[in-house]
Amino acid sequence: MPYTDLFSADTGSFFRSPVRDIFKKVDLNSIYSFAGGYPSAETFPLDTFREIMSGVIEKYRGQAFQYGATQGVTELRKALSDRYGVPVERIQITSSSQQGIDVCTRVMVDPGDVILTSNPSYLGALQSFSSYRADIRGVSHEEDPVRFLRAYTDMIEKVLAEGKKIKFLYMIPDFQNPSGETLSLEERKILIRLAQEYGFVIVEDSPYRELRYSGEQIPTMYSLDPDRVLHLGSFSKIMAPGFRLGWIFAHPDLLDKIYVCKQSLDLCPPVFDQYVAAEFLSSGLLDRNLGKSICLYKEKRDLMLSMLEEHMPSSVRWTRPEGGLFLFLTLPETFDSVKFYDTALGNGVAYVAGAFFNTEWISGRRCPGKDGLNTMRMNFSFMSKERIREGIILLSGLLKESL
Amino acid sequence: MPYTDLFSADTGSFFRSPVRDIFKKVDLNSIYSFAGGYPSAETFPLDTFREIMSGVIEKYRGQAFQYGATQGVTELRKALSDRYGVPVERIQITSSSQQGIDVCTRVMVDPGDVILTSNPSYLGALQSFSSYRADIRGVSHEEDPVRFLRAYTDMIEKVLAEGKKIKFLYMIPDFQNPSGETLSLEERKILIRLAQEYGFVIVEDSPYRELRYSGEQIPTMYSLDPDRVLHLGSFSKIMAPGFRLGWIFAHPDLLDKIYVCKQSLDLCPPVFDQYVAAEFLSSGLLDRNLGKSICLYKEKRDLMLSMLEEHMPSSVRWTRPEGGLFLFLTLPETFDSVKFYDTALGNGVAYVAGAFFNTEWISGRRCPGKDGLNTMRMNFSFMSKERIREGIILLSGLLKESL
Repeated sequence: MPYTDLFSADTGSFFRSPVRDIFKKVDLNSIYSFAGGYPSAETFPLDTFREIMSGVIEKYRGQAFQYGATQGVTELRKALSDRYGVPVERIQITSSSQQGIDVCTRVMVDPGDVILTSNPSYLGALQSFSSYRADIRGVSHEEDPVRFLRAYTDMIEKVLAEGKKIKFLYMIPDFQNPSGETLSLEERKILIRLAQEYGFVIVEDSPYRELRYSGEQIPTMYSLDPDRVLHLGSFSKIMAPGFRLGWIFAHPDLLDKIYVCKQSLDLCPPVFDQYVAAEFLSSGLLDRNLGKSICLYKEKRDLMLSMLEEHMPSSVRWTRPEGGLFLFLTLPETFDSVKFYDTALGNGVAYVAGAFFNTEWISGRRCPGKDGLNTMRMNFSFMSKERIREGIILLSGLLKESL
Repeated sequence: MPYTDLFSADTGSFFRSPVRDIFKKVDLNSIYSFAGGYPSAETFPLDTFREIMSGVIEKYRGQAFQYGATQGVTELRKALSDRYGVPVERIQITSSSQQGIDVCTRVMVDPGDVILTSNPSYLGALQSFSSYRADIRGVSHEEDPVRFLRAYTDMIEKVLAEGKKIKFLYMIPDFQNPSGETLSLEERKILIRLAQEYGFVIVEDSPYRELRYSGEQIPTMYSLDPDRVLHLGSFSKIMAPGFRLGWIFAHPDLLDKIYVCKQSLDLCPPVFDQYVAAEFLSSGLLDRNLGKSICLYKEKRDLMLSMLEEHMPSSVRWTRPEGGLFLFLTLPETFDSVKFYDTALGNGVAYVAGAFFNTEWISGRRCPGKDGLNTMRMNFSFMSKERIREGIILLSGLLKESL
């Protein structure tokens, strides 16, 4: 039967993740993959998980497998409250931090409303924003604070002049996906001031924040204005992504709408997994394991940076992230990393084309030189050090031939 | 800060579940609760779960905790394919069958589009439909097939005369929530014929189907027209709700939209839980456990029916379900079960007011006599037999005083 007439208008703005489609086609373990945003499976403490699971079954019995509260199980909300100093009543557990992004958009955005974000930005967020027919406006990063302020102010004024409404600004302030860059304290304060002045919310997405390998921790935007900033957290990078658990910190008025929405989305987050996460967190085992992950990822980042230095053609530049899972390569302006992808994959190495994170490219406003076609996102967490080494040599060789 | 200006139009149609709000206020174990839709925790095979979990960690290692495919892990889709004879490519795993309802609505319904359903209908579905600003039209059940056909045809013609578009018909054909009633094969065929004739989809929600205690299994609507019917399944009642896992069977064109939507909703269902479910299912342990649950629930249903017979005032009638978790009480027309709830709870017994499942009541079209105010949903799965006995005696006594 023909379904075309039965689809909602939103479906016209759905777009499939080119990254997830890559994963469908190739076995990541059979190639050199700098593509995914996967943590290293080495960091998952399998024996610890097994013991905690056994303990949770012993302690909670049937309750661990029953329906749970929509806002999340109390034990997990309390453990997060203790860790981050946020009142329990401001905490909603989500079934993944991707759900956090989606539900924020759902409760705030009508078709045509503007969402501001950095350019490039996280693909999964752009997918969600687009699926609600938001008007996504990306602002390229400026190093100088005066120019940084002006870039955002100009965009805001432009949007308002068009008679459009800005609902929120979406940012990953720490070790951004895909760029690996971190916002300075001054930049965070500038954005909050703009949000206050123009009356929009800031959605702060912080999945990588605890994976810092060098430099000093900078306060979260949430801590700077907890009423104006909605903070998204994730267990994917500090525990394991297979649990699909995240959290939202937000003002109770905003959280209440999210709570009601979540009832109809999926009733409650996975219950057993929440008890496991609560135990992992409150026992201190999470921190012990996180310490090990940080050591491992720091080594991988350092290796990646030195291999790039040694092997990449001189016309290639890259970011030097202080944490997270990614760095971002910029190639000569005429280079097309979307086209080059087939060559790379044909030779057994994968990355994600930077254009897939570019707000102009994604929105179909493809302005040459501003569409990120000459960029690549490179992950350094997933593969072993040996394979990172071999993969960079391979990719560098292919780029040298091509440039 | 004031958020009112920042909320989306959809939020104006969000309504909170009165059932979930009951659970927030009272500890279900401290009262006689006929209110929830909870399976009995006695049916959760804790030792089996522990062993399977241990086995899954052993077998899949880190992969069990990594990101997974958006459509669900292959092992679980194959196990469902084997069990239900549906091709793997027609199966999408969902993070709860509530998510199945939500995502169907998301991909098909624009504000003002009509969703047909039985009246009364499942509250969680009504919440989701309302949250997308659907125009919900409920049709009361008619025993006689000719009148059954006419009731639906009349509603469809009425809707079309208003120039509205019907996107789908939502039904729980087996042991409906809240009524406990089952559609006959003839009724299923009538509805499918109407869907074919008028060009809409049928969403068949089947969380209780495998919990049959008497009578003969009737073919699913999906099996009667797999291209026209989208089937929703759930692990909540055949395994445990705490895993938050369900599935969708649907035509590939429809499933593809759902797949892309699910990417932005939460990337993928919980991975470890899916491996546990796959193992539980394919090892045959699910069927063994299900057999025990059916025995237990049959006893509880039979007890409930005989207790009602013995103790309820003569003016009260009820359905006699052949399976599932609920039966439905109808009281004299002047009775108000929403008002009576405080009296009942004050005396330590809870139910869910039937009005909360009534499409007219929920939509604010409150027509006296048709708003279900004189009905109650009663669950018989959650409490022990002893407590069912005591609870019915208590509630019957309160009703006798009140009527």
